[in-house]
Amino acid sequence: MINVAILGFGVVGSGVAEVLSTNAEKIAQSAAQEIVLKYILDVRDFSESAYKDCFVKDFAVIENDPSVQIVVETIGGVGAAYDFTKRAILAGKSVVTSNKELVATHGHELLELARTKNVNYMFEASVGGGIPIIRPISQCLAANEIFELYGILNGTTNYILTQMIQNGVSFESALRDAQEKGYAEANPSADVKGFDACRKICILASLSFGSQVYPESVPTEGIENISLTDVEFARSAGGKVKLLGRSVMREDGRIACYVAPHIIGENNLLSNVEGVFNGIVVRGNAIGDVMFYGAGAGKLPTASAVVADIIDSSKHMNMRKYIYWEEAKPEMMFDPATIVSRWYIRTSAGLSQAKKVFGKVSVLVSEGAEFETAFITERMSKIEIEALVSGFPVLSLMRVLD
Amino acid sequence: MINVAILGFGVVGSGVAEVLSTNAEKIAQSAAQEIVLKYILDVRDFSESAYKDCFVKDFAVIENDPSVQIVVETIGGVGAAYDFTKRAILAGKSVVTSNKELVATHGHELLELARTKNVNYMFEASVGGGIPIIRPISQCLAANEIFELYGILNGTTNYILTQMIQNGVSFESALRDAQEKGYAEANPSADVKGFDACRKICILASLSFGSQVYPESVPTEGIENISLTDVEFARSAGGKVKLLGRSVMREDGRIACYVAPHIIGENNLLSNVEGVFNGIVVRGNAIGDVMFYGAGAGKLPTASAVVADIIDSSKHMNMRKYIYWEEAKPEMMFDPATIVSRWYIRTSAGLSQAKKVFGKVSVLVSEGAEFETAFITERMSKIEIEALVSGFPVLSLMRVLD
Repeated sequence: MINVAILGFGVVGSGVAEVLSTNAEKIAQSAAQEIVLKYILDVRDFSESAYKDCFVKDFAVIENDPSVQIVVETIGGVGAAYDFTKRAILAGKSVVTSNKELVATHGHELLELARTKNVNYMFEASVGGGIPIIRPISQCLAANEIFELYGILNGTTNYILTQMIQNGVSFESALRDAQEKGYAEANPSADVKGFDACRKICILASLSFGSQVYPESVPTEGIENISLTDVEFARSAGGKVKLLGRSVMREDGRIACYVAPHIIGENNLLSNVEGVFNGIVVRGNAIGDVMFYGAGAGKLPTASAVVADIIDSSKHMNMRKYIYWEEAKPEMMFDPATIVSRWYIRTSAGLSQAKKVFGKVSVLVSEGAEFETAFITERMSKIEIEALVSGFPVLSLMRVLD
Repeated sequence: MINVAILGFGVVGSGVAEVLSTNAEKIAQSAAQEIVLKYILDVRDFSESAYKDCFVKDFAVIENDPSVQIVVETIGGVGAAYDFTKRAILAGKSVVTSNKELVATHGHELLELARTKNVNYMFEASVGGGIPIIRPISQCLAANEIFELYGILNGTTNYILTQMIQNGVSFESALRDAQEKGYAEANPSADVKGFDACRKICILASLSFGSQVYPESVPTEGIENISLTDVEFARSAGGKVKLLGRSVMREDGRIACYVAPHIIGENNLLSNVEGVFNGIVVRGNAIGDVMFYGAGAGKLPTASAVVADIIDSSKHMNMRKYIYWEEAKPEMMFDPATIVSRWYIRTSAGLSQAKKVFGKVSVLVSEGAEFETAFITERMSKIEIEALVSGFPVLSLMRVLD
C-alpha cells in the first residue's frame, strides 16, 4: 500500500483525487498495490467534499508523516510549491507534479536533490497535459540522438488561432470566447504572450538534450499581433498560423530554443491539431519523426498523467528512475536568430518595393486585404531578415516552418 | 556492462547492430552502463561484415554463455524464433523482439515463462515500428480505463492506398510500385489481406485489456477489393479509405477486435497519416483521445525501438517490468459484427432500388462512375447490413468510422 498526499485542491489536484477514486481498481492492478489518498493540503474550506477527512492546512503534517511516500504537488507557481517540493524530497518522499513553471525554472536543482535523497521527481503532466511525452522521450527514444523537437504546446492560444482560422473571428473576440469557456485566464498573458509554451519547450529541451534550459534564455513571441489578415494570407499559401515552441540541435551539438508563431503547411501533421489540443513532433536520428497528440490541458487528462507518475513512482520505491538533467551550460546554446527559414511578411509597401529589398519572393493573394501586400521570402536567418526589414514598413513577420 | 546477442541479421537485426554502434555514447548514458554486442546468430556468411567476429551459427553458444544477459530476437515467424525465445528465457536471459507474429500468437505463454524466470520479454518494436506505443499504453496511460483503440497499423497497405488516393493509380500498379520500392514483399498477402495489421491489433488489445487476443479470433479484411472508384466516392464524401485495426470495449467490459478498410473523415487525425507511416489512436476514460504517429516500419526506426527495450531491460536486470497479460478469455469477447456504424455501399443497382432496401441514405457523386451508385447508410450493425445486402448487387461495402 502506498499513501499519497495532494498539495492544492484546484482543478488538477481534485482531478487526481477523482481519477484515483474512479479508476481505483485499474490503478491498483497497474501499481500491483493499493494507492491510498491520505491527505489533501488546502487552506480553503472543503467540509462538504467527499474527501473532507483528508484535508489538512499545515504542510508539516504531511512532511512529518513517514507513511506518506508520494507527494503530488498541484499548487502551481514557484512559491509554496517550490518550498514544499524541497521539504518533501528532503523528508524522503517522491514528488509528482504538473507544475511546468517550477520544473522549467528549478528542474535541475530539484532533480539533483531527488537524486541525493534517492527518491523520484516526476512531471509527465507538466507538458502536453495527459499526452505521454516525458516518458516516451526519456525511455522509448533513448536509443536516438534527438536533434529537433517542436510542437503546439499551449491549448489556449491554439484555441484562439483555430477560432480565427475556422470562424473568421478576430483575436480579441476569440480571446473573450476562450475566457468565457474557461480556456483562458482573466489575465491571459502567460498563454497569449507565449510564456506557457516557453516553459514547456524548456522542459522538453532540458530532458532531450540533458542540461537545463532556462525560460529567460529563450526568445518568446506570442500571438497578440496575429491578425485575421495574416490568417487569410496564410490560407492562400496553403498554410495555417500556429504558435510553436521549437528546439533545434545544430551539427556541432549546440542547441537553441524559441517560441514564435509560424506558418505551417497543410500537410504537416500539426496542421490538424485544432482547438485546445496539443501536438508535439520529435525528430531522432534513428526513428525519424514521431508525433504525439492529445488533450494538452483539462482536469482529467492532466490528472491521468499525474496518476501515471504516481503508479510508476510507487513501483520504483527506493529505486531512482531515469529522469535527470544537468545544470545549464550556456556555452552549449546558440542564438536561434541564426536559424534559417523562409519568412512571411505583410507590408503596406508595394510589391516592386518589396522585391527591391527582399529579392525573389512568392506573392500571396487575399481578397480582403486592401492596400496591403504579403509574400514569402527565400530562406534566411532572423538576423538577416531583421536587417532587411529595418526601415521597411512591416505589418507582420513570421517564420514559415519548412 | 551488458552483453547482448542478436538472433537473425536481417533488416531489423542489422539495424540494431547499427544503432548500438552509431549511438553508443547516448545509449551508454541512458542505460548508465555500456551495452556490448557479443554475438550475432545467423547461418549465412558475413565474413566481410564489420561485425564478423560476433557471428555464431549455433544458438547453444549464446544459450550457454551466462555473460549474455539480453537476447534480441529478430528472426521473425513462429518457428526457430519461438524455440530460441523459450530457450533464452529458460536460460535466464531477457528477450527483446520486433516479432509481431510470435507475440500475437504466443505472447501470454512467453510473458508467463518470463515471469517465472524473473526476466523481461519486451516488444516495443512489434507494433508501429519505432513509434512509442507499448510503453505509453502500459505506463503513461496506466491510470486510464482504455475503452477503444484503432489505427493505421500497416505501412505497406497505407502506402498503396495513399498512391491510389493521391495519384489515382490502381491497386495493382500501386502494389507493383510498393514491391519495387521494397515496401511490399514478393508475396504481399500478409500485408494486403490485413494479417499483419491483425497481429498488431491483437498485441495492442492484449496489452490494453489484459488477456490474450489470438489472431484467429479476429475477423480480418484486406484492401484487395478497394477500387479507384471507391477512393473517388470516398473523396466526394470528404473522406479517405484507410485500413484500420480496431478494438472496442463494450460497457459490459467485453471486447471485440477486427481489421477492415474504413472511410474516415478529413478531420480525423489519421486522415493525414500518409504513405508508409502509421498512426494509432487510444481512447481512455480520463485522457480522452491520444494519437501516436511515426514510421511504422523500416530498419532504423524499428531498431531504435528494439534498442530502447534493450536499454530499459538493462536497467531492470533481476527486476520484472510491467508488461503482462493473461490467457485468452473467450467469454470476454463479443462479436464485432454487432458494432454499429454507418456503411458505405457501392452498387450496380439504381438509387430508387437502394432506397427501398436501405431506407434513408446519403448519395455520393463521382464523375468517373458510370452505371454505378454509391451511398452511405444510417447506423446499423454488420449483421443488419449483411442481411439487407443479401440479394442486392453490392460492389463494395465498407464501414464509415464515426
